[in-house]
Amino acid sequence: MAKAITQRKDNYSQWYLDIVKRAGLADHSKVKGCMVIKPTGFAIWENMRDELDRMFKETGHVNAYFPLFIPKSFLSREAQHVEGFAKECAVITHHRLMNDPNGNGVVVDPDAKLEEELIVRPTSETIIWDTYKDWINSYRDLPLLINQWANVVRWEMRTRLFLRTTEFLWQEGHTAHATREEAMEEALQMQRVYAEFAEEYMAMPVVKGIKTANERFAGADETFTIEALMQDGKALQAGTSHFLGQNFAKAFDVKFLNKENQQEYVWATSWGVSTRLLGGLIMTHSDDDGLVIPPKLAPTQVVIVPIPKPGPEIGEAAEKVMKALRGRGIRVKFDDDEKNRPGFKFAEHEMKGIPVRIGIGKRDLEKGQVEIARRDTKEKTFVPIDEAAAYIENLLAEIQNNLFERAKQFRDDNITKVDNFDDFKEAVSGNGNAEIESWGGGFVSAHWDGTTETELKIKELTKATIRCIPLDNEKEEGQCVLTGKPSGQRVLFAKAY
Amino acid sequence: MAKAITQRKDNYSQWYLDIVKRAGLADHSKVKGCMVIKPTGFAIWENMRDELDRMFKETGHVNAYFPLFIPKSFLSREAQHVEGFAKECAVITHHRLMNDPNGNGVVVDPDAKLEEELIVRPTSETIIWDTYKDWINSYRDLPLLINQWANVVRWEMRTRLFLRTTEFLWQEGHTAHATREEAMEEALQMQRVYAEFAEEYMAMPVVKGIKTANERFAGADETFTIEALMQDGKALQAGTSHFLGQNFAKAFDVKFLNKENQQEYVWATSWGVSTRLLGGLIMTHSDDDGLVIPPKLAPTQVVIVPIPKPGPEIGEAAEKVMKALRGRGIRVKFDDDEKNRPGFKFAEHEMKGIPVRIGIGKRDLEKGQVEIARRDTKEKTFVPIDEAAAYIENLLAEIQNNLFERAKQFRDDNITKVDNFDDFKEAVSGNGNAEIESWGGGFVSAHWDGTTETELKIKELTKATIRCIPLDNEKEEGQCVLTGKPSGQRVLFAKAY
Repeated sequence: MAKAITQRKDNYSQWYLDIVKRAGLADHSKVKGCMVIKPTGFAIWENMRDELDRMFKETGHVNAYFPLFIPKSFLSREAQHVEGFAKECAVITHHRLMNDPNGNGVVVDPDAKLEEELIVRPTSETIIWDTYKDWINSYRDLPLLINQWANVVRWEMRTRLFLRTTEFLWQEGHTAHATREEAMEEALQMQRVYAEFAEEYMAMPVVKGIKTANERFAGADETFTIEALMQDGKALQAGTSHFLGQNFAKAFDVKFLNKENQQEYVWATSWGVSTRLLGGLIMTHSDDDGLVIPPKLAPTQVVIVPIPKPGPEIGEAAEKVMKALRGRGIRVKFDDDEKNRPGFKFAEHEMKGIPVRIGIGKRDLEKGQVEIARRDTKEKTFVPIDEAAAYIENLLAEIQNNLFERAKQFRDDNITKVDNFDDFKEAVSGNGNAEIESWGGGFVSAHWDGTTETELKIKELTKATIRCIPLDNEKEEGQCVLTGKPSGQRVLFAKAY
Repeated sequence: MAKAITQRKDNYSQWYLDIVKRAGLADHSKVKGCMVIKPTGFAIWENMRDELDRMFKETGHVNAYFPLFIPKSFLSREAQHVEGFAKECAVITHHRLMNDPNGNGVVVDPDAKLEEELIVRPTSETIIWDTYKDWINSYRDLPLLINQWANVVRWEMRTRLFLRTTEFLWQEGHTAHATREEAMEEALQMQRVYAEFAEEYMAMPVVKGIKTANERFAGADETFTIEALMQDGKALQAGTSHFLGQNFAKAFDVKFLNKENQQEYVWATSWGVSTRLLGGLIMTHSDDDGLVIPPKLAPTQVVIVPIPKPGPEIGEAAEKVMKALRGRGIRVKFDDDEKNRPGFKFAEHEMKGIPVRIGIGKRDLEKGQVEIARRDTKEKTFVPIDEAAAYIENLLAEIQNNLFERAKQFRDDNITKVDNFDDFKEAVSGNGNAEIESWGGGFVSAHWDGTTETELKIKELTKATIRCIPLDNEKEEGQCVLTGKPSGQRVLFAKAY
């Protein structure tokens, strides 16, 4: 039997890392803060990307590709944007290496210094709006609804596989509109698309909300977010959609002739999700036996294990079941490895999160049945072999649903309403849950006086930040938990990734 | 009517550029040598990528993702590799900008200098083989069949949209094998996959061959290539597959325990095609009216134009035809723009290379027919509306086939066998074809004595290089066109992109 992984209650961070490594999802690389996404991890990302891409196209967007490099001067054009990104970026200063005159390998060629330094894109608003200037002349050119799948780089000091890495993969939508209303509706639409993807495909419940001024994207007038809760009671910002107003249009002088024949600045949005979602996916569903992934995103949805080992009869039965499953569009593999025993294989497939396992043994075959085990609940049952494919098609839908409901129940159970600062501190202190060593406290729903000053003070005192002002908030008169000043609605606080 | 583009005979380079811009495929960016791939261009690339990805997966490969950055010292590990790439690379030296103390925007923070410079990957052999060292222990871990879709950067001085850009998109396969034979077969297999893709999907005929030592990839023992001929008589290297021997395994100390229980260095291949293929696609088929693309890769395969303008009856007929076409998996659009006249639309859709145009007019509808025009030959015909979808499905296949046959005929017509250096010079001088102002001379099949010295001398004298030693070469005794020394086979020379 393979060595067990760290248990959540003992060391949640190590549990996460163990799963990422043991399930073959990613690895650290020799380049500080950069990860290698391994084939299994990348296959999950491909499934996520394909679904998102379909959803973007269904809402009228097209893909394009913009340069990796951003001239240094572009960053400075939008004042808040440069504040947000200049402190952690990769700067290209030269374009050639040469042999070291002293014979120590290669060194930078001092004669190949760039006139202007280039930044590896941390996000592409600047290079894209510089391009849009050439593409937009009149209202007839609008809206421009473009998305890009790309790698970006932010020089992070503390990194964590998928959740925070120096280089990561993402998509960034950048749209241009003739009116404020249309741009605002686009930003909200994409937040809805993200929420739908998170809940329908990742089975990860999210809260849709608005970021406070302090937590806004650098250069945005409004940032909409989807926030999820991980099993250690910490929040994960899973996707953001920004209403950029006319900030980038003004910075890059992008005007259009409106229907009234007047020059006007263009209205903008941008929105993105990244490989960080993989971290959220892992932490939402997995357990102490390894990865759990929802069937809709699983590269392999069903694995067939011969018991005790492959043979002609079992092989024939497996072929039959596989054909029936594939006929229903189900992704199935036959584990015909002869080296390892079934017990070892069971543990490995559990570790890798394959949603359904079929065991085919000789004795079962004589009875015309196979054993079907689901990864999420560990339940097993015997099913007539001819009914296996239909049974599994339903089972996969049930697992998908169960994972979402389970995660939603957990999330809902871990939203605490508090009305004074002692209760607030108690809620986020982590004492509320002895199960997890580093328990974050879950979401805390509390009144806040609306000032950045109070927000930062609460963060300083408790490490909890305002994750969002939920969109579906009910109005409720109350008093700020810290200052006692009047407040018209509750906001969601949490410690966050 | 829109302004016509430059004609091939007058200025082939400008004709190419006109098509790239007017068909909305790509644009220059403000970043030197980097391009913006526009939505239409990117949609073609997506179709190419999806087909290639399917072919890679069918031959047992999986995708993964490796870091964008390569530590400078990694490049030096393989002697030829560093020679090949160090002279044109983007070097990252710092990880932070700061506000200029003098108030001039942002400047590089001198305190944020990296201990070791990072190179933006020009290709990923080094970072990948450093990773494979951790993944490979025994023959059980082999073969490793991994592909990556990524952006790479080579600091080019003279760039040309798609054909040669500083940043480009590509895929790079990197495989590891237990035996020389298996690695060699893998390299040859991927050359066959590339050739099949080029001919079946791009309708671009290619010669499969071997590169001479002088034209080999930096670090390879053998480079296999597919070479195409453009309409100006110049060759385009369209894809390469490298047998790397044990060079990178030795450079990164990657050994495995073989079946005989002995430590042995791993055998390797790498192979790649890039957005350069888009340049080849454009130049193989397009004409003086604009882009021509084979139906299998066209984002829009059929466009319906209402004549003279949209209306309820025409709209209804268009819906019916579209439904029938989509039922056959055909990508169709209805151009219901009210602003422009049919003549303008016809020219625009020709410029953009949409393979089939359907004209629907009121008078034709009364006769129960529509007009169908094909982009490749400009032929038009009337077809009963109920038969339009079936007719077009066949027509698309016929266009795909016609484009390939036409390109193949052109290629075959432009392979000249020569047996002395005067004829060689005459063939590559460009005098042979008065049609194209900058005629390259086509492929020249000639005997060569097998030395790099002769190869370089011929290049110096004529600008023609050896594109490849064709794989299907017949053995033929002859004499080198330059030196008269004995030679056992002809090789293909050409001026090349």
